[in-house]
Amino acid sequence: MTTQGQVITCKAAVAWEPNKPLVIEDVQVAPPQAGEVRIKILFTALCHTDAYTWSGKDPEGLFPCILGHEAAGIVESVGEGVTEVLPGDHVIPCYQAECRECKFCKSGKTNLCGKVRTATGVGVMMNDRKSRFSVNGKPIYHFMGTSTFSQYTVAHDVSVAKIDTKAPLDKVCLLGCGVSTGLGAVWNTAKVELGSIVAVFGLGTVGLAVAEGAKAAGASRIIGVDIDSKKFGPAKNFGVTEFVNPNDHDKPIQQVLVDLTDGGVDYSFECIGNVSVMRAALECCHKGWGTSVIVGVAASGQEISTRPFQLVTGRVWKGTAFGGFKSRTQVPWLVEKYMKKEIKVDEYITHNLTLGEINEAFDLLHEGGCLRCVLKVDD
Amino acid sequence: MTTQGQVITCKAAVAWEPNKPLVIEDVQVAPPQAGEVRIKILFTALCHTDAYTWSGKDPEGLFPCILGHEAAGIVESVGEGVTEVLPGDHVIPCYQAECRECKFCKSGKTNLCGKVRTATGVGVMMNDRKSRFSVNGKPIYHFMGTSTFSQYTVAHDVSVAKIDTKAPLDKVCLLGCGVSTGLGAVWNTAKVELGSIVAVFGLGTVGLAVAEGAKAAGASRIIGVDIDSKKFGPAKNFGVTEFVNPNDHDKPIQQVLVDLTDGGVDYSFECIGNVSVMRAALECCHKGWGTSVIVGVAASGQEISTRPFQLVTGRVWKGTAFGGFKSRTQVPWLVEKYMKKEIKVDEYITHNLTLGEINEAFDLLHEGGCLRCVLKVDD
Repeated sequence: MTTQGQVITCKAAVAWEPNKPLVIEDVQVAPPQAGEVRIKILFTALCHTDAYTWSGKDPEGLFPCILGHEAAGIVESVGEGVTEVLPGDHVIPCYQAECRECKFCKSGKTNLCGKVRTATGVGVMMNDRKSRFSVNGKPIYHFMGTSTFSQYTVAHDVSVAKIDTKAPLDKVCLLGCGVSTGLGAVWNTAKVELGSIVAVFGLGTVGLAVAEGAKAAGASRIIGVDIDSKKFGPAKNFGVTEFVNPNDHDKPIQQVLVDLTDGGVDYSFECIGNVSVMRAALECCHKGWGTSVIVGVAASGQEISTRPFQLVTGRVWKGTAFGGFKSRTQVPWLVEKYMKKEIKVDEYITHNLTLGEINEAFDLLHEGGCLRCVLKVDD
Repeated sequence: MTTQGQVITCKAAVAWEPNKPLVIEDVQVAPPQAGEVRIKILFTALCHTDAYTWSGKDPEGLFPCILGHEAAGIVESVGEGVTEVLPGDHVIPCYQAECRECKFCKSGKTNLCGKVRTATGVGVMMNDRKSRFSVNGKPIYHFMGTSTFSQYTVAHDVSVAKIDTKAPLDKVCLLGCGVSTGLGAVWNTAKVELGSIVAVFGLGTVGLAVAEGAKAAGASRIIGVDIDSKKFGPAKNFGVTEFVNPNDHDKPIQQVLVDLTDGGVDYSFECIGNVSVMRAALECCHKGWGTSVIVGVAASGQEISTRPFQLVTGRVWKGTAFGGFKSRTQVPWLVEKYMKKEIKVDEYITHNLTLGEINEAFDLLHEGGCLRCVLKVDD
C-alpha cells in the first residue's frame, strides 16, 4: 500500500510541556508539500540541544513539539518540485539547510543558509507556515526543521543530505550533529595546522570529535580539559594526549594551560556551553595568534566577557555552528570518510535503545559515561 | 665635538607626576649600551596612549617618565654589537620591537616581538634593567621603549626602523603609531577584500587611517561612526562614504548599521577604546562572516562582552597592535609608500608646535578638530 500523498499515522515522542517526560503518541504526519520531503526515520540519537529545549530553559522553545535532530532514514515521498532526493534515498535530515542560492550560501564564507530559517526557528514549514504534525487534530511544532523523534518526519528539501545507501544508518545518524560539529570546528573554523597545540574543554561527543579532528590535522599535543577525570581513559582513543582537571589546581585553568604550554595553546575549543569556560578557553590561547572557537551552546541570556587586551594582543575569538560544514554537500562526504574508516563514528555510541525508551535515554545523556545513545525508531 | 660615548644633556618633557603639566627639563641621556641606539629626535607627535598614561589611569604607568612614541630622528651613536643602524641613519623608533629571532617573530603569525618586552614594560633598558635618563642624578623612566618627548633618546636596536634619508621627518614621524596602526588593521589583521562593506567607529587619526586603508583595499562602502558630526566633512577625504552619528538614532547603533547594510557589515573597526563601542562594532557585523577588529585601547580593568551566539553564528572578534606591522621591516616600506604618494600622511597633521609647547599640544589632543600635532623637538 502506497503512503504517498496520504496522512501517515505513526509513533512519535511528543514533548507536551517543558521538563515533563516525553509521551509516545500516535501522530498524524501530513504529506510533504512543495519543496518538502517526508522521511521514514530509522535511527535517531539524542543531543544536548534536545535536552536544553526540553528543559524549558530555551526561551525560543515551543511546545508541544517533536524534538530530535541527529538521525538517519529513508525518503518515503517528496513534494512538488523536489528533484534532488527521491523515495527510497537514504538521507540525513540536517538542522542546517543549504539552499545554494541565498546570500549566505553564495558567499563562500559560511554554512549558515538563511533559506528556511524563518520557519524552522518557529517550528513550522516555509510553504504554509504550518506544522505537518498533529495529534487528534492538534498541531505539534517541528523542532530545528528535523523532528527526528518520530517514525516519520517532514523536512525542507534544502535540509536533506542524500547519502550512500550502503552506509549503516544506525551509525551515520551521528553525523547529523555532534561528530560533524567537532570535526568541522577543527577543520573548517579553526583550520588547525600540523604541529599545533590544542586544548579541548569538555570531553563529551563534540569534544572528542574535536580531539579526533585535531589528531587528523596533525596537532602535536591535544590537551583534554574536563572536571570528570574518568573521561580521560576513553578520550585517549580519540587523540587526547594529556588531561587536565581544573579541580586539581588552585590556579585558574587558563593559567595552568599557559604554564603547561610555554605561553598558551595555538587553538582551543569550548565544547560545553559554559560562558566562564569560554573565557578560560580564550585566555589560555597563546598571545599573538591563539584562536579560540566556541562550539558549545550557552544558555539563553548568558554573556561572554574578557579584557579587550586579550584580543589586541593577537588572540582571536570565533564560534562555529555545525562545524562550518555545508550540510547537503558535506554530510555525504563525511559519510564517505566514515565508510573509508577515515573518521570514527561507532566509537561514540555507548548506548542503544528504542524510541519507546526515550526518557531513559534522556537520563543517560546526563551521565558521564554516555556519549551517544542511538534509538531504534522503526520498532 | 663628538658626543659619542658621552652623557648628553638636552631638553626633554618630563612627566613628574600623573595628570600634572609636563616640565621641560635638562635631562642627562647616558650613552647607548650593547644593543642600544641613541637617537636625536627631530619631530614627535602626540598620541592618545601618551595622554592615557600621563592621566594616571594606566596602572602600569611609571613616574617620573619621558612619554612619547610617534617620532622620527637621526642616529647619534650606537652601542656594542649594533650593526643594522649607524650614526647618521634616519630612523623611526618603534614601540613594537622586531628581533627576528624570538618565538613570536619566527612564528610568521604576529608582529608582537617578545625580545625586549620585559624591560620596555617597566620603563628600563634590557641590558642592565636601568634607565638611560636622569635629571640631576635622579633616574627617569623610559616609556614604551621610545620616550620621544626628548631631544635625545635611547632605544633597543630591535626597535629602530631605518628609513629613507629623503623622507621628511616632520611627516613620517606619524608612521610610528597611529597611521600605521589604522592601515595595518585593515590590511594585515582584517584583510579587507574588494567590495567589502566596512564600518569605522571613531574618526580620529587611527579611524581615518582605517578608512584610507579600506579604500585602498577596494571597500565598496566605508561607514564612519562618530558622535561628532563635524568629523564627517574631513573624513570624506580619507575614504569615508557614509556617516552615522549614534546620537541621531533611538535604536542601538549596531541595529542602525545592520539595517543600513542588509544584515551587517563585513568588517568593523573600533578605534576609540570604549568597551561598549567594541560590543556594538562586533554586533553590527554580518552573520556568517563579519569580522570586528579592536584597534582602540580600553582603560585598564574594563571588559568587553557579548552573547556567545554572536560568535557561534559566524562573527569573528579580533584585535590588533601596531596594525600587525613588523616594525623594522615594514615601517620603512610604509615610508616608501608615502614617498610614492600611495598613502597619506601630511593630511593627518592639523597642528605644528614645539617641544616647549607640549602641554598645549596635550590640550589640543582632546579637541575634535585635532588629528595629529607634530612637535619640533630640536629647537
